[in-house]
Amino acid sequence: MVGKRSLTSLHLESLLDKTDIDSIAKQLEPKHEPPVKPYFPNSKVNAHRTNKLWKAIGTAPHPDILDPWTGAHFEHFDGNIENFIGTTKIPLGIAGPLRVNGLFAQGDYPLPLATSEAALVASYHRGACMISAAGGCTSMVVYQALNRAPAFAFDSMRTAGKFVAWAMESFETFQQLANSTTSHGKLVDVGTTLEGNHVYLNFEFTTGDASGQNMVTIATQAVCDFIQKECPVPIRQLYVEGNLSGDKKASSQAYTTTRGRKVTAEVVLTPEILEKYVRATPRQLIDYWRMSAIGGVLSGTMGVHGHFANGLAALYIATGQDAACVAEPGIMVGTVGGGTGLPSQKACLQLMGLQGSSNSGALAEVCAGLLLGGELSIIAALATGDFTRAHHKLAR
Amino acid sequence: MVGKRSLTSLHLESLLDKTDIDSIAKQLEPKHEPPVKPYFPNSKVNAHRTNKLWKAIGTAPHPDILDPWTGAHFEHFDGNIENFIGTTKIPLGIAGPLRVNGLFAQGDYPLPLATSEAALVASYHRGACMISAAGGCTSMVVYQALNRAPAFAFDSMRTAGKFVAWAMESFETFQQLANSTTSHGKLVDVGTTLEGNHVYLNFEFTTGDASGQNMVTIATQAVCDFIQKECPVPIRQLYVEGNLSGDKKASSQAYTTTRGRKVTAEVVLTPEILEKYVRATPRQLIDYWRMSAIGGVLSGTMGVHGHFANGLAALYIATGQDAACVAEPGIMVGTVGGGTGLPSQKACLQLMGLQGSSNSGALAEVCAGLLLGGELSIIAALATGDFTRAHHKLAR
Amino acid sequence: MVGKRSLTSLHLESLLDKTDIDSIAKQLEPKHEPPVKPYFPNSKVNAHRTNKLWKAIGTAPHPDILDPWTGAHFEHFDGNIENFIGTTKIPLGIAGPLRVNGLFAQGDYPLPLATSEAALVASYHRGACMISAAGGCTSMVVYQALNRAPAFAFDSMRTAGKFVAWAMESFETFQQLANSTTSHGKLVDVGTTLEGNHVYLNFEFTTGDASGQNMVTIATQAVCDFIQKECPVPIRQLYVEGNLSGDKKASSQAYTTTRGRKVTAEVVLTPEILEKYVRATPRQLIDYWRMSAIGGVLSGTMGVHGHFANGLAALYIATGQDAACVAEPGIMVGTVGGGTGLPSQKACLQLMGLQGSSNSGALAEVCAGLLLGGELSIIAALATGDFTRAHHKLAR
Amino acid sequence: MVGKRSLTSLHLESLLDKTDIDSIAKQLEPKHEPPVKPYFPNSKVNAHRTNKLWKAIGTAPHPDILDPWTGAHFEHFDGNIENFIGTTKIPLGIAGPLRVNGLFAQGDYPLPLATSEAALVASYHRGACMISAAGGCTSMVVYQALNRAPAFAFDSMRTAGKFVAWAMESFETFQQLANSTTSHGKLVDVGTTLEGNHVYLNFEFTTGDASGQNMVTIATQAVCDFIQKECPVPIRQLYVEGNLSGDKKASSQAYTTTRGRKVTAEVVLTPEILEKYVRATPRQLIDYWRMSAIGGVLSGTMGVHGHFANGLAALYIATGQDAACVAEPGIMVGTVGGGTGLPSQKACLQLMGLQGSSNSGALAEVCAGLLLGGELSIIAALATGDFTRAHHKLAR
Repeated sequence: MVGKRSLTSLHLESLLDKTDIDSIAKQLEPKHEPPVKPYFPNSKVNAHRTNKLWKAIGTAPHPDILDPWTGAHFEHFDGNIENFIGTTKIPLGIAGPLRVNGLFAQGDYPLPLATSEAALVASYHRGACMISAAGGCTSMVVYQALNRAPAFAFDSMRTAGKFVAWAMESFETFQQLANSTTSHGKLVDVGTTLEGNHVYLNFEFTTGDASGQNMVTIATQAVCDFIQKECPVPIRQLYVEGNLSGDKKASSQAYTTTRGRKVTAEVVLTPEILEKYVRATPRQLIDYWRMSAIGGVLSGTMGVHGHFANGLAALYIATGQDAACVAEPGIMVGTVGGGTGLPSQKACLQLMGLQGSSNSGALAEVCAGLLLGGELSIIAALATGDFTRAHHKLAR
Repeated sequence: MVGKRSLTSLHLESLLDKTDIDSIAKQLEPKHEPPVKPYFPNSKVNAHRTNKLWKAIGTAPHPDILDPWTGAHFEHFDGNIENFIGTTKIPLGIAGPLRVNGLFAQGDYPLPLATSEAALVASYHRGACMISAAGGCTSMVVYQALNRAPAFAFDSMRTAGKFVAWAMESFETFQQLANSTTSHGKLVDVGTTLEGNHVYLNFEFTTGDASGQNMVTIATQAVCDFIQKECPVPIRQLYVEGNLSGDKKASSQAYTTTRGRKVTAEVVLTPEILEKYVRATPRQLIDYWRMSAIGGVLSGTMGVHGHFANGLAALYIATGQDAACVAEPGIMVGTVGGGTGLPSQKACLQLMGLQGSSNSGALAEVCAGLLLGGELSIIAALATGDFTRAHHKLAR
Repeated sequence: MVGKRSLTSLHLESLLDKTDIDSIAKQLEPKHEPPVKPYFPNSKVNAHRTNKLWKAIGTAPHPDILDPWTGAHFEHFDGNIENFIGTTKIPLGIAGPLRVNGLFAQGDYPLPLATSEAALVASYHRGACMISAAGGCTSMVVYQALNRAPAFAFDSMRTAGKFVAWAMESFETFQQLANSTTSHGKLVDVGTTLEGNHVYLNFEFTTGDASGQNMVTIATQAVCDFIQKECPVPIRQLYVEGNLSGDKKASSQAYTTTRGRKVTAEVVLTPEILEKYVRATPRQLIDYWRMSAIGGVLSGTMGVHGHFANGLAALYIATGQDAACVAEPGIMVGTVGGGTGLPSQKACLQLMGLQGSSNSGALAEVCAGLLLGGELSIIAALATGDFTRAHHKLAR
Repeated sequence: MVGKRSLTSLHLESLLDKTDIDSIAKQLEPKHEPPVKPYFPNSKVNAHRTNKLWKAIGTAPHPDILDPWTGAHFEHFDGNIENFIGTTKIPLGIAGPLRVNGLFAQGDYPLPLATSEAALVASYHRGACMISAAGGCTSMVVYQALNRAPAFAFDSMRTAGKFVAWAMESFETFQQLANSTTSHGKLVDVGTTLEGNHVYLNFEFTTGDASGQNMVTIATQAVCDFIQKECPVPIRQLYVEGNLSGDKKASSQAYTTTRGRKVTAEVVLTPEILEKYVRATPRQLIDYWRMSAIGGVLSGTMGVHGHFANGLAALYIATGQDAACVAEPGIMVGTVGGGTGLPSQKACLQLMGLQGSSNSGALAEVCAGLLLGGELSIIAALATGDFTRAHHKLAR
């Protein structure tokens, strides 16, 4: 028994061990009886509705989910969630401070990180401290963009082509319409993909201090409504998003262009600092970097890095960003809107001095510095053999 | 002024608007004065150390971060975090129940979703209810694996080749050593990449009911320690991970093989159910699916889907999984270890009836059903034009 | 013995079967004795130098390589090859004619295809005939671009940033310099990637009727020479290409933007035509398309298609294009320059009525129609089971 | 006018310059009159049929396509092409000799390269000579595999699951059937992808000395015929290839596993050799390598390299390989079958001493050495500024 087939067979055997294949198939069938009773959907957050939901679940409100603090803050969650039953508490650690010398960020920032993974905060902490000891990192937002990609189907490629010509001519009108829906966002460009009789328009926006996903949806809808009404050629299908924008996904388009903010960061380290903070030599880091860069390439990652997702997820959760954006290649942060106004999240942004408008550029630059520190820390850990020791010790 | 260059120039102008380029360069320089004082690292969680950290931050403990419930549960967070200062509260909504007919999951599951994104729970809720109305989804774990990829450098490719031959012969020993470090994990296979004088061994494990990242690190370290000691050829460099495993990253290797659990799910919907739950016709869904599948391909995503990351992030956070794994292509869930023992997270697993050992297969199958529901819901929303309306209404 | 490891072991055993591992290692060692005598490099093509090369090879000129026709055409190959010893003869088949209704292509085109793969011409032929029977395909060049990406290293990110600001300001000068080196190419845009202290400028050109790789290199060199001389900040390293352009490679950047020409093509087929030309029903094609589209996605191809490379390689070789560009995602064709002036290649372009200037747009549109026919043909063959039969019959 | 939209508009204007949009749309319409007369398909190669084809094209046989040598070798092309009208002559240059110290390749190999791109042979030549001067390269086939991926649709996922269980049990039978169709190929493994009610079986073969695409198709068809007849569950659709194999495509699956041969090569160069052959220092090569490796990563290529496709295309064409395989990530070479028996191609294999059976491993190792030489040469050219100069001088 050779090859991957043998492992598939082992997996099957472990299943069939318990029972025969027909019973398994039976188990997998749709079951209409008894009918399922859905929870009644609740978009408004208040004590009454939450209690109704717990009743529907069939159990008393769990005190670790609906704790006193949460019970005292119902109205703060309204507009951020539906079918609210309480809160999930994520341990919050503080790393740093991280000194950032940026276009927007200037100074020493505490780094709030929400995670349940042992060793994560410790790893980012030592990275951040090392950077700060070196005078801080230079960090620079080099581009900002967010896109929505409405899609259109026509009777033929010829009509689709006419549509593209009209859409290009109408771009200033599109801009006026889009910009009229938001005081912070601006429609700045459009990419065009003609695929047979289908057209995808890739609208590119700036979004001010918001992360902006809802903003660009609403702005794009306004343009689509106009197109629906005024387009000189008949449209068969129109969708506000044709799944080409890369929203919530690792797309190579977003990697080679930008979704959110593209930030680059740099620090100059001396051998002494390396030795002091991560017990490594420059040569060890360089050797491991080359090995790991090729490892990343060989496994086919988008970009080459060690563990961006760890720092991103922890900072996103702590500061009220959309955690699903951890899947995207860009840095997607805002300091207004979304979850940034929730109590503990807002408190973290305040700790950093980055709550409210005019702060999203700085937050993105701090985020890049955080990731730089995390990379330096994991590279050193793997280069020197500390990696397993740290996980062994901290994940008790 | 044409092309992308014009947008880059606008970005630059907006920066230079405020100041001149030399002042900006000055701003970006390392700054050694005054020196930064790092927080003293704390791996133990208790009131005393938390208070010291707040003092170091320079402010009183924030009541939305260090609330009474959190203050009463210090010991619960020990081993999951360092530099603990409190908790982040994520709103928790409940969707479903979702009926799942799986190899492991059998029955109707409430779906706890932690998110700050309006409309997310509502969208997954209607998807789940629709699936349940159809008798539930069939959901099936088809493979399980987790890998660690230690890397080795030699003086030449010839020596590297000898090492590979020895490693293949020694595999049973590697298995014994690896398996001796864990009662739940098993080393089941090894892939080999010979790249000049570098070798990556891609160890594949099963991890029982744990998500398993630490488990496979420790097991691999045991093998590496043995290799370090017993290898008959001289090793220049040895790393427990050469960045080839795909850990915390979207890698195409993980997409075409498996990290975590590979699950496939299916539901058969009637036109009546579609009309009732999402006000769409089968034709509308099919048309949009084709448009959006090509959209995904054109933007270069790994796999084609709408918004897996939304459901994954929300379920991962609610049930104590590693949120950074949202970046990976596989379903990475456990029901023991990591954050699954934290109070509110454990409570969510209990709500689902999936807390503790022997439940991770079922959790993965429920997760796949959740994502299926989310895809059906967003496809319907985009196909019928509900998408913007829902976001407009729910994100107030 | 389980998993991939077992296949690696089998591979190793088959090697060790013949000999032991130390002998193999010996075999793999560098061998300095006797020294190798390189052929003397010859960039000029003529009989004398070719004969010298055959003498150096140590054998008489092979009559199937240096045949009479080749021997009579030495001067025709000068400037397209070095170390010339004769020609490789690739069988040439003719498919079509293909009717193309394009922006540039208008009419019925014979399709010369050079290949040694049985069934390839037959497959493209039936596809082309089917398209022609349907009134031809609509085919449309939607964009044209070719890029070169010079790269620069600086002492710090700050200096790199200053360089970018200067480069953006200097773009009109860059355009003048670049455009002065060519009467056909134009520098139209520049993308900027700032990566720490490294900068990649991605120059985008139009290239007229040439494929243009040399043209953009020379134009970019002129800009680089200017940068070298005039740049106000010190440059550590300067390269005319930093491997970011995607030249001769499948890069996702080129897939989501354009290298060469982006062309889209469409044909409307009736059930009768399908039945007559490929014995398939629309349902069969649609079913297979869905299965194969997902197959492509699951295996992680850039874009989803069946066998573009077959048609591209055969047409590129027949018409004197750069065959290495089969590796790129775009259509890279020219009707002047490169191999398009070689005798048999020029003859093929003449057959098509597309030799010489003003024809490259039409050639690209014909190429897209060819690929469309090839896709229809292979989809039908796989959907109906003809695929193996055809290969069995034609590859005798 | 900003952004990419401005370039799209310029493109549109250049089209509309000549005419109005309705005339263009007219031009793009299907045109049924006059009907196109297809060439009568000819799978047999002989003078009579070739003449008929030239008549159908409507012109006398072109002497550069149907030259005397070609006219004297009709029967040699039979079975490699359909609709034969002559041959395309590709200039053939000779590089090297290249010393290869491999598992299979041992000795000094002339490198025949068929190309129309100036500077290509010169570049590979200097790379090969440099390697030879260093005692040759170590080159090692580390894996060999070719796959075909038949696909199956069922009424439900449950039935699909039963099919997978049956297929795993029946694997030995599949092997017998597959192996009975070929004396050289062997079915060695199978991967399984269950996607809802669809199943892809990824059959992995070894193919002996043939490149093997037809061999694996025929073997897989035999298995499919058996499945069609004997499968205990009803099959809705069955295809011999579900587009998951990666055939003729750059797929990430093929990059992280193997299609064809996976070969790794190494050479140790002294500063003296570098200086003598490419006028570069080690530091220059290392600096450029890092810059270009990151450039490759940033543009999203599969793997990181400079111009593999150049060497592959030239060697493939010269030695009768399938030129379309330049699009694949692996080395796809054979020394029997396909185009390897054509006169000039066979002559090249004979020159190398690698014609006929038992030579494909050696050919793959020489190929890897060729690519290594090409990478060293282009890296040096770009690192020292020779790149443009060489192209300027040689592409006259």
